Amino acid sequence: MDIDRYFSTRRTVRRYTAQEVDNDLLTRLIDEATHAPNTGNMQLYSVIVTRSDEGKRALAPLHFNQPSVTGCSVLLTFCIDINRFNRWCEINRADCGFNNMQMLMAATIDTTLFAQQFNTLAEMHGLGCCYLGTTAYNAPKIAEVLHLPDGVVPLTALTVGYPDGEAPLSDRLPAEGIIHNELYHDYTDADINRLYAHKEALEESSRFIAENSKETLAQVYAEVRYPRATNVLFSDTLNEYLDKTFFK
Amino acid sequence: MDIDRYFSTRRTVRRYTAQEVDNDLLTRLIDEATHAPNTGNMQLYSVIVTRSDEGKRALAPLHFNQPSVTGCSVLLTFCIDINRFNRWCEINRADCGFNNMQMLMAATIDTTLFAQQFNTLAEMHGLGCCYLGTTAYNAPKIAEVLHLPDGVVPLTALTVGYPDGEAPLSDRLPAEGIIHNELYHDYTDADINRLYAHKEALEESSRFIAENSKETLAQVYAEVRYPRATNVLFSDTLNEYLDKTFFK
Repeated sequence: MDIDRYFSTRRTVRRYTAQEVDNDLLTRLIDEATHAPNTGNMQLYSVIVTRSDEGKRALAPLHFNQPSVTGCSVLLTFCIDINRFNRWCEINRADCGFNNMQMLMAATIDTTLFAQQFNTLAEMHGLGCCYLGTTAYNAPKIAEVLHLPDGVVPLTALTVGYPDGEAPLSDRLPAEGIIHNELYHDYTDADINRLYAHKEALEESSRFIAENSKETLAQVYAEVRYPRATNVLFSDTLNEYLDKTFFK
Repeated sequence: MDIDRYFSTRRTVRRYTAQEVDNDLLTRLIDEATHAPNTGNMQLYSVIVTRSDEGKRALAPLHFNQPSVTGCSVLLTFCIDINRFNRWCEINRADCGFNNMQMLMAATIDTTLFAQQFNTLAEMHGLGCCYLGTTAYNAPKIAEVLHLPDGVVPLTALTVGYPDGEAPLSDRLPAEGIIHNELYHDYTDADINRLYAHKEALEESSRFIAENSKETLAQVYAEVRYPRATNVLFSDTLNEYLDKTFFK
């Protein structure tokens, strides 16, 4: 395998063939993914495997009916999990104080490292995956469907299956726009214009602007795709849910 | 490369030889890592490269003087970054409402996916890495040292270099302890005891218990390594910092 070529040309796959992902393969890849780095080797995460049509149909609306949810072979919901660790502490007479922001962030990082390790492994084995950012939007309802107890927070999800056709390669900002040497060097207007020039010049960008009757691509992102009011609404939902189930 | 073997035997590397990581290689790996999945392709992250001795010495105490900080070739501080996106929106007359929990979580996930993609790439190229969970503990002071503007939050860091000797392989819970089929099945005491049996039986676990004058391994984790009071202190610091620089 040409490592550099794989990493620089990997694609998000949203359409899958009817071929099922073998359960032994799935378990093996999850097992290997647990070797991802994690805070203090506490593994503060769980993954819920949804393979049944019934399960996918229950989750689909909570992911705004993105077709990959019912079209995939398996849907994996990656959850922050301090419940298992808490249980271990209870049994072993240990006072566990993980119900706070510091541990939420640590567990968020660890759960994501685990998910991404699975994603890379799956892709390297010829599977295709797509992250569902909608998971955190509807965390309370997803938790209800999946019977998540307190301390278990749905963070992100992956749809997994065999790719149907070749998915498009998406653009990225030039690395110079991401890297800061020694100190953060804030961006001038000229820097910003140069860094986003390629993205703005893409044919699809002009189409997005026209379809949404906007003047700039930034407006499509900030005002149509991820508008303030929606972000605030989902933030309130998430904060309330975390207060009730994680920070309590 | 045997993919399965790599993933199931990868190790965290904390000790490095004197060989420097070539700057062209580093830039190439960071560039390839940006092809990690991310929310809406907004790339809400930056990475600060610390290569100078002066820079490492300034950061070392903020990472509690872990020897890998001054012993590595480069230290990468991965930051959530909504500053660049905000700037793009300002220039393009877009109302950006990303200063909330929903976008903090999305950007945390994206920054971590990017970091882990770099970690895997680096390891596959023979480099060794170690995440520094201390990054979020001292976020405000790290932000000061690295000149991070508002909207840029240090989330995690990686020390990178060529491995000096073979690092130990660390244990993991059995996959059955992480995977839930269709619904979350809460753990019985017997489940917990079975899942943690291997970890508890390790020679180093007995040593940790003895060294810390504790009765159980769970007490070492929850009361010595990650005690409630410290978690609460770092949570307060992080929350205050986020209120002042990200949620404002």
